[in-house]
Amino acid sequence: MSPRTETRERVVRAALRTLAEEGFAATSARAVARRGGFAPGVIYYHFDDLEHLLLAALEWTSDLRLTRYREELAGVTGAAELLARLRALYAEDVAEGHVAAVQELVAGASSSPRLGPAIVERLRPWLGLTEEIARRFLADTPLEHVVPPREVGLAVVALYLGLETLTHLDRDRDRAMAESLFAAAGPAAALFDSLLGHAHEGGAQG
Amino acid sequence: MSPRTETRERVVRAALRTLAEEGFAATSARAVARRGGFAPGVIYYHFDDLEHLLLAALEWTSDLRLTRYREELAGVTGAAELLARLRALYAEDVAEGHVAAVQELVAGASSSPRLGPAIVERLRPWLGLTEEIARRFLADTPLEHVVPPREVGLAVVALYLGLETLTHLDRDRDRAMAESLFAAAGPAAALFDSLLGHAHEGGAQG
Repeated sequence: MSPRTETRERVVRAALRTLAEEGFAATSARAVARRGGFAPGVIYYHFDDLEHLLLAALEWTSDLRLTRYREELAGVTGAAELLARLRALYAEDVAEGHVAAVQELVAGASSSPRLGPAIVERLRPWLGLTEEIARRFLADTPLEHVVPPREVGLAVVALYLGLETLTHLDRDRDRAMAESLFAAAGPAAALFDSLLGHAHEGGAQG
Repeated sequence: MSPRTETRERVVRAALRTLAEEGFAATSARAVARRGGFAPGVIYYHFDDLEHLLLAALEWTSDLRLTRYREELAGVTGAAELLARLRALYAEDVAEGHVAAVQELVAGASSSPRLGPAIVERLRPWLGLTEEIARRFLADTPLEHVVPPREVGLAVVALYLGLETLTHLDRDRDRAMAESLFAAAGPAAALFDSLLGHAHEGGAQG
């Protein structure tokens, strides 16, 4: 990495930490600079304004997590295994501050006209990934022509976002609600594997 | 209604319209008073402060919609019928400005320490209603001991909230995303009715 790219990434990481730990309203250029240990001028050398930095931060964390999800989910064929991996990935999302930073951006979008549509834009590859996995799991099962993968993808992304909103509203940064859903989905995933799993394995790469 | 109660309701309705049409950030006491056609002092006669008014507005619209949902869903026994009624109820939520007002409050909660937990509190009866309906539909089907109704309720409420957040972020106040989910769920609801419907009808009141 060039020194320029390195500094830019340092600014982006500082912005994400500030969002996650201090919240959207407190994420000023000054606060980001303080957290990153650089002068506020460094931000304006790399970004037109604070909003531009926030959009870059969103893009950075979203790309990083998407790559990680794609890696982890590429070879999964069973629903129980899928569920276990999603649970571990979600724990990483929380531990790395990704969830908190994105949630602050979503909340902050109401006071920034550019932020909302930009967040939706960053969600598109996530819609693509969830649709792709739904398609893979439904292929060659009796549900293939009953449950449309595109809408499953939309529902999963909306569910993730809604759960985060609920957790955030409750000032409860732990993962109690998401954990209860992961736990509750276990028996359904096992049933899916035992009833439809064999059909699905044949079409896993379909 | 006493004149006092009548005026209070008029203030509450004006607050909801202001939230829905001007957004959280623009919902000042002055803006609510202007919209309602009364002096700002009227607000402070009935409410300690603006936040208190917003909480009362949330409670009012939530109670009203909950009563309506309970009425409409009480006698429903088939999944296809449930879906059709939910679609119509959701269209009402949008037309009456309920969705927009709640979404503005959710977005605004990040800048108000009391609002977030109060919104979660108002969501509890919705969690209860969705759980109750899930329990009714799962009773006496093979899914009864596989899919826990409490978590279905949580997932449905989170999905609703997440869809609204997505729509709101996109500055797209129409219902394209929710509509695509309602349409996509049709064949699955029909399948549920044809496979499990007869078992379910026997336990409809269970």
